[in-house]
Amino acid sequence: MAEFALIDRFRQRALTRSDVALGIGDDAALLDPPKGQSVVLAVDTLVEGVHFPKGVPASAIGWKALAVNLSDLAAMGATPAAALMALTLPDDNMAFVDEIGAGFSALADTHRVALIGGDTTRGPLSISVTVVGYVPRGAALLRSGARPGDDIWVTGTLGDAAGALALWKSGTPMLRTGALRERLDRPAPRLGAGHALRGKASACIDVSDGFLSDLGHILAASGVGADVEIDILPASSALVAAIEDPHARRLLQLTGGDDYELCFTAPRKRRDAIQLALDAVATPATRVGSITEGARLRLIDADGLQVPTPERRGYVHFADGGA
Amino acid sequence: MAEFALIDRFRQRALTRSDVALGIGDDAALLDPPKGQSVVLAVDTLVEGVHFPKGVPASAIGWKALAVNLSDLAAMGATPAAALMALTLPDDNMAFVDEIGAGFSALADTHRVALIGGDTTRGPLSISVTVVGYVPRGAALLRSGARPGDDIWVTGTLGDAAGALALWKSGTPMLRTGALRERLDRPAPRLGAGHALRGKASACIDVSDGFLSDLGHILAASGVGADVEIDILPASSALVAAIEDPHARRLLQLTGGDDYELCFTAPRKRRDAIQLALDAVATPATRVGSITEGARLRLIDADGLQVPTPERRGYVHFADGGA
Repeated sequence: MAEFALIDRFRQRALTRSDVALGIGDDAALLDPPKGQSVVLAVDTLVEGVHFPKGVPASAIGWKALAVNLSDLAAMGATPAAALMALTLPDDNMAFVDEIGAGFSALADTHRVALIGGDTTRGPLSISVTVVGYVPRGAALLRSGARPGDDIWVTGTLGDAAGALALWKSGTPMLRTGALRERLDRPAPRLGAGHALRGKASACIDVSDGFLSDLGHILAASGVGADVEIDILPASSALVAAIEDPHARRLLQLTGGDDYELCFTAPRKRRDAIQLALDAVATPATRVGSITEGARLRLIDADGLQVPTPERRGYVHFADGGA
Repeated sequence: MAEFALIDRFRQRALTRSDVALGIGDDAALLDPPKGQSVVLAVDTLVEGVHFPKGVPASAIGWKALAVNLSDLAAMGATPAAALMALTLPDDNMAFVDEIGAGFSALADTHRVALIGGDTTRGPLSISVTVVGYVPRGAALLRSGARPGDDIWVTGTLGDAAGALALWKSGTPMLRTGALRERLDRPAPRLGAGHALRGKASACIDVSDGFLSDLGHILAASGVGADVEIDILPASSALVAAIEDPHARRLLQLTGGDDYELCFTAPRKRRDAIQLALDAVATPATRVGSITEGARLRLIDADGLQVPTPERRGYVHFADGGA
């Protein structure tokens, strides 16, 4: 395994930043955070056969490995700065590595993320990315700030990635899953929205495991309950066209993973401010319910009637389906 | 995969630090570095069947995954603060996970490292750790500062871990490899020495791939050559007892990996200062050669004669031996 050659390949692509005192090439990297900022850190791993099926384009693997981590920074209201990549590869396929690098860099460059370190090892294909960002001290969006009476919001649309996975599993040709598949392979982290919500949202999380599951984390951390109006959960036109059965579609929206939207809460009096702030970063958002006292999560239909919550709130990994 | 239960298990063990504003349990962790310090970051992955054979105690896996990263911080002269762990596991064996956690914590607690984040995924066994430390701005030990005339030093002894691996591969019962095996399974990162060398060493690297390979990185980064006196390379009494053939032993010292000693350079006039500083942290060190002009790495025997360098300078991974 030509570890040093691999790291050099990535180094050539890595952008430079004034806060990166030392990037790839020594025993460790050096970062000088701006004054008054907390350093924000998250790590996530994608494993072949678990988080993505064999045969996914390598560029999508590189993109997504960074995207899922940037989404965590977005949920904190943080601004990304740097990343470290631990790449485990079964062989020395340099074209494959370059494709991973191209996908990673395409997203990294968009958000000015410098690749400052890495490790390449031989083994079953997986990619683990650690991201580093900044947020002004005390300004991070946490899961624990939701209060009874707060609105519950979600950005963008829910269920697209899970829809693509469902279609793929049912044997639908890739071409017909186009827009949905793009959501699954190349999720766009909501960094602009997370930044815009600082000082406005009372709690925030990214929707990675499934809307109900992730909202559940806010409720647990905040010690509150929620009423969710399931008929106003946002769906893309692609999802509506692809999944005709409304019950199946709703289940994807409620429990499908990999959306990488933000679910957040905010006091009612901030509705206009939030709408303005999200408009300014061109991020659509929908109010989908409200925080309640107690700890119950209730689903309410258009007639105001409570409907049962799905047995499984969370993400069905690729592997859980039988891989 | 009970990801949240796993993370909770680790969270309960994680020590608290005043600079950790937010640890495990949200989308990301928050760290407030002390004023005037650079943030130092490194990542390393251990894969079963590559970096350790099947059947190694889980506690040793947890220990070593942190140790190899702390060794990178030591080589920078940095003080560790926090770590993130991405753990990929084939199943939900909680006893195994707890053992990994116990090994990790044993080392983490010794060096006051807080586990601030993690990700657990299903897949072939591997563990990727990102460490975060601090070093005063401008004080980090780099690979690039070696100058002609500098002494070349190495801490501790070389070849023990590779000796354990060689014995293990030749079928020697585990009990006979005791002290060597401990070096392989539970390396002790030279954090005290790294700290003591700040402002004294001109260049530094940790010996992870093999002495010649790692010294080679200093030479390349500094644009210099070296004369190494192979007959004074430090060997442990355990290695001398276990590997009787002096040629075989020397090869292990020169090219065996996993030592996690520090190899550093320093001006001759600092010999006494270095000896005093390392004595103060109870770290033995040996002067093994000197930096030269040019780019050649020469090996010199006790008679002052040049001997050929081994064809392979670097670490022979477990997997390279046939796994």
